[in-house]
Amino acid sequence: MIKIELKGKQVVVRDPSSLTSLINGFYGRKIKNALVLSPEEALYILDVRNGVCYQKGKEIRLGELLEKWSKRRKFLARYLTYKGWRDRGLIIRSGREVWGKYGRSVVKQYESRPLRLKSKKIKGVFYEDDLITLSSEEGKELYEKFWFGQQGTYKAAHRGKLFKLDLFESVYLMKKGVLEIENASREEVIRAAKRRFKFFEDMFMVYEDWREKGYVVKTGFKFGTHFRLYFPGASPVKKGKEWIHSKHVIHVFPRKHTQLISEWARAIRVAHSVRKTFILAMPGKKIKPKRKYLDFALYYRTKSELETPKNSAPRFLMYSLTEDEKIGGEKLAEALAVCEKYGLEMLASIADRESSVTHYLIKKITLENSRYDYFEIEWVQP
Amino acid sequence: MIKIELKGKQVVVRDPSSLTSLINGFYGRKIKNALVLSPEEALYILDVRNGVCYQKGKEIRLGELLEKWSKRRKFLARYLTYKGWRDRGLIIRSGREVWGKYGRSVVKQYESRPLRLKSKKIKGVFYEDDLITLSSEEGKELYEKFWFGQQGTYKAAHRGKLFKLDLFESVYLMKKGVLEIENASREEVIRAAKRRFKFFEDMFMVYEDWREKGYVVKTGFKFGTHFRLYFPGASPVKKGKEWIHSKHVIHVFPRKHTQLISEWARAIRVAHSVRKTFILAMPGKKIKPKRKYLDFALYYRTKSELETPKNSAPRFLMYSLTEDEKIGGEKLAEALAVCEKYGLEMLASIADRESSVTHYLIKKITLENSRYDYFEIEWVQP
Repeated sequence: MIKIELKGKQVVVRDPSSLTSLINGFYGRKIKNALVLSPEEALYILDVRNGVCYQKGKEIRLGELLEKWSKRRKFLARYLTYKGWRDRGLIIRSGREVWGKYGRSVVKQYESRPLRLKSKKIKGVFYEDDLITLSSEEGKELYEKFWFGQQGTYKAAHRGKLFKLDLFESVYLMKKGVLEIENASREEVIRAAKRRFKFFEDMFMVYEDWREKGYVVKTGFKFGTHFRLYFPGASPVKKGKEWIHSKHVIHVFPRKHTQLISEWARAIRVAHSVRKTFILAMPGKKIKPKRKYLDFALYYRTKSELETPKNSAPRFLMYSLTEDEKIGGEKLAEALAVCEKYGLEMLASIADRESSVTHYLIKKITLENSRYDYFEIEWVQP
Repeated sequence: MIKIELKGKQVVVRDPSSLTSLINGFYGRKIKNALVLSPEEALYILDVRNGVCYQKGKEIRLGELLEKWSKRRKFLARYLTYKGWRDRGLIIRSGREVWGKYGRSVVKQYESRPLRLKSKKIKGVFYEDDLITLSSEEGKELYEKFWFGQQGTYKAAHRGKLFKLDLFESVYLMKKGVLEIENASREEVIRAAKRRFKFFEDMFMVYEDWREKGYVVKTGFKFGTHFRLYFPGASPVKKGKEWIHSKHVIHVFPRKHTQLISEWARAIRVAHSVRKTFILAMPGKKIKPKRKYLDFALYYRTKSELETPKNSAPRFLMYSLTEDEKIGGEKLAEALAVCEKYGLEMLASIADRESSVTHYLIKKITLENSRYDYFEIEWVQP
């Protein structure tokens, strides 16, 4: 049985056999001859490791401790994700114990090939309710060479005369002087877009950024995201009999937006189920993070041994979350900036209502010549 | 070549060979010796069937017609979904041509088995940031007999002492007098819930409704929805070595809420990818629909022949939508009430930004003794 002690607000361990067992398990901070435990560590020992807590020599009720800790910010988000990692037999330490540059994060490089848009000008009619432009003029060049719009029918360009441009394509091509809308000005189109999308500007910034770098950006509707992405050079003209498949989807998370974790995670789930790489886009000005640390530093295992603070640097930083909390774009950007600083990748670890934990691995992307933040997010089961 | 004519605001067909061809294809309404086409039908003939439109003997530019029609409400939502159905070689007619009761809709019956909740009272501590209750008391009875909360660890109830209740379980069990929260009143818990969830009341109404009918309602986080559902009698205690799997997920769509179709469809996609039946829940008072018709009546095919207005009743009513439009719970409820009236099932047909159409089949559910509306939604490829 492990004996721990409540001294004021601190939980300490002095009992010799408990001390040895906990130090071997990488719990607590050694201070002189005692071990100081964080509330998460203490609760784990009481909950799972059959520990008992004393105060002034008297056993203290677990219920009493739960009440004491109930005012701590996001205590259960942290406790449940801590427990989830420990339950896998892995070592987890406070996020404040990191220092220096670990060089473990892999920045994914996305090359760019500036778009050289040469096309004759075309005219079209904008349908405000549907946010789509129809043109009766020949869109073959724009469609086949640059994959703007949809000529004829999806996957059957010969079927039908009409050339269709979506909202983002319409605004972009108007800006480039390639499209003239006969029944609306560019300002009117943008106004209609903003009435529909709270964050149209952010979405357009992302659309434009990847397009300018030569990527093809089309709707991600079938994959539950804002956009899907093809690498520079992709064409809707079948090569042989093969239709080209996108391998990436993009979801825009405006810095000023806040949403429930459950909503945020939903888009990533769809991408996972269709085996696409999920890219989170955060357009706009990067901030200097005020945040200095994340919740936990995570150790993993190699093929042959468990990683610990003794034999290894941490592998990830954990951002502890629950299903029903809200997250803001700015907060996520800050957390990611912390990871960048230490050269570690981030696990966004989410405890659901049943206390089961799901992990999302987040890696930074560098899109050549872009000023925005992009991240690859992957649902992982470590 | 099919010749059509613009007369005032109407499109008519009088050319004999065009008439025969269009009547055989089930286009238009016959009025005396002419055929009157809807704008959707007219555009389809011009776009796909190589038609030409005349006005006072002179050919009229397609671009001119596009401008004329650009003020019609949701014209492209209707046109693109019309085209999608026609392109499959199937017959589609105006939604105003339906009458009587077709008796084609299958109402899915969900039985109920009233919950008889008998349990000793337990105490717990509510964590406001995380919206979770922890209890150090024995939750085995509530967990094993009724599947409330999570004893120990998910799928490993023996691992850990703590009993965890989620927000909905906490409020429900407080209401039932089975749970006493030591650090908050029921009102305080509900207040915290409402601060987090704009539609907590709607979500709780749905939770309570299914629970009272004997169903087990747990988080749907892993499946991208608000809840997942088990039929009456389900237990988290493994029978043999098999863990019971849910087959249904529930998503709450409050009548007063409005959201982008793309967001609405995302949740259905996740459910589809994990092979769960998706249930849309609309709690609250049913309304008398003001709406009388949907966009289109759809004919399908049997194994041996094409269904047409001549040999068959329509199969579905189509609600025409685009990816980037917003839909409200009330609007959807109204559309579904129209379908109920005619005894037809609804296809919510969504044109994405590329004009590709996705169909969702919506069937009514009757949950025994419930006053709310529930619908099964399935992604179909007719």
